[in-house]
Amino acid sequence: MKIVIIGSGNVAYHLSKAFDAEKIEISQVFGRNEKALEAISSELGIPFSTSELQDADFYLICVNDDSVREVSKLITKKNCLVAHTSGSLPKEILEGNYRKASFYPLQTFSKTKRLDYGKIPFFVEAENQEDEILLKNFAEKISENVMVSNYEKRKYIHLTAVFSCNFVNHLFSRAKEISDAQEIPFHYFLPLIEETVEKIHNIEPKLAQTGPAVRNDTRILEIHEKLINDDEQLKIYKTINESIKKMYEL
Amino acid sequence: MKIVIIGSGNVAYHLSKAFDAEKIEISQVFGRNEKALEAISSELGIPFSTSELQDADFYLICVNDDSVREVSKLITKKNCLVAHTSGSLPKEILEGNYRKASFYPLQTFSKTKRLDYGKIPFFVEAENQEDEILLKNFAEKISENVMVSNYEKRKYIHLTAVFSCNFVNHLFSRAKEISDAQEIPFHYFLPLIEETVEKIHNIEPKLAQTGPAVRNDTRILEIHEKLINDDEQLKIYKTINESIKKMYEL
Repeated sequence: MKIVIIGSGNVAYHLSKAFDAEKIEISQVFGRNEKALEAISSELGIPFSTSELQDADFYLICVNDDSVREVSKLITKKNCLVAHTSGSLPKEILEGNYRKASFYPLQTFSKTKRLDYGKIPFFVEAENQEDEILLKNFAEKISENVMVSNYEKRKYIHLTAVFSCNFVNHLFSRAKEISDAQEIPFHYFLPLIEETVEKIHNIEPKLAQTGPAVRNDTRILEIHEKLINDDEQLKIYKTINESIKKMYEL
Repeated sequence: MKIVIIGSGNVAYHLSKAFDAEKIEISQVFGRNEKALEAISSELGIPFSTSELQDADFYLICVNDDSVREVSKLITKKNCLVAHTSGSLPKEILEGNYRKASFYPLQTFSKTKRLDYGKIPFFVEAENQEDEILLKNFAEKISENVMVSNYEKRKYIHLTAVFSCNFVNHLFSRAKEISDAQEIPFHYFLPLIEETVEKIHNIEPKLAQTGPAVRNDTRILEIHEKLINDDEQLKIYKTINESIKKMYEL
């Protein structure tokens, strides 16, 4: 089976590496950025091209969401499988007379960082069972966390990630505003943050909740509301405390 | 210098252990829970009592916020230093004719978990410089992150911890509601969560922000708002996205 990876960014690099580590041969990496392709090619010994897309059985499109449709049109072959790697696009975004699929790794990739691919969840979707099994098998060689999921389900996966990662990072930003204003080094809070994440590996987050709201400690809640002098911080403070009280029926 | 630790819970245990590891001798652990005291005593070879508080130069009160005042009255000695370990109480909560102080480790302690004490921030406060230096020295033997901070500053420390830990945990709870409803295992999100925390060790959280709001991706924001069918989730979703847009002036 001939496999071509399209793209030269972080997703293309890491998936090429993950496939390579599992002895799944990649015939070509194809893209526009010659320098980036050359780097992948020389590290993993995969041929690359910026102009001639090789004939293959499986094309894996690893480009930005905005470019997926355009790139998918480059594949003129009919009897082949094409998958994109986006969490927020349906497989129907792909334009061509081939079998369409999605192969979505839930992780932020950066070029320099080494990742333990075995823990990265993969969500796969195909038009027929044979392709689905094929994609599942590829994903399961790389990772222990593989799930079939359609576009509808991927939306919820993305939403969960927004709450548990994007929003969490924003809370770190707002927390740092508070500590910066008091000249308290924000890195002092990192051990406690790590502990917060460590805990939910062993216990449901709902059972791990601590802090003034879940204790219904109105003295502290009032002190804090008076301390905060930023509108957005205050809105977040009130909204999340209300949500905590609702969750625990306080 | 004779040191007595009052309390038999997790803070008492871990601070006894941290002092012991730095060869700072503790003369007694004192408290009500004989079994817990016995455990500390046998592990660290420190005498314990439930009835007779030893004469000492420094008493470290490691009990719940609600009990600090009552416990502080047990110390009838005059020429000594007494510190509580609470982040949200002033040192004046202590009732007695002794020198009052606070010695606050910013960490969630659990009995079973081994902790790297060297990274735990300690915030200390005393009535005079001599005591302050003494407490700083103790803290600096244990940890590399030590800061003098009064009650006013401790309030902001606590507030920062609420945003970066308590609220973060609540976002995990809400995220898990979403993934549970779709039968997506929540542990699939742990690698991404770890990556989110890992990132802010090297880069400002404000610069690490990703997700639809910071990209001002109205398509995704609308999709998500339609997906959410819980009032509290929706309030959080809107509030934090608004806050992100304000922060990045979108």
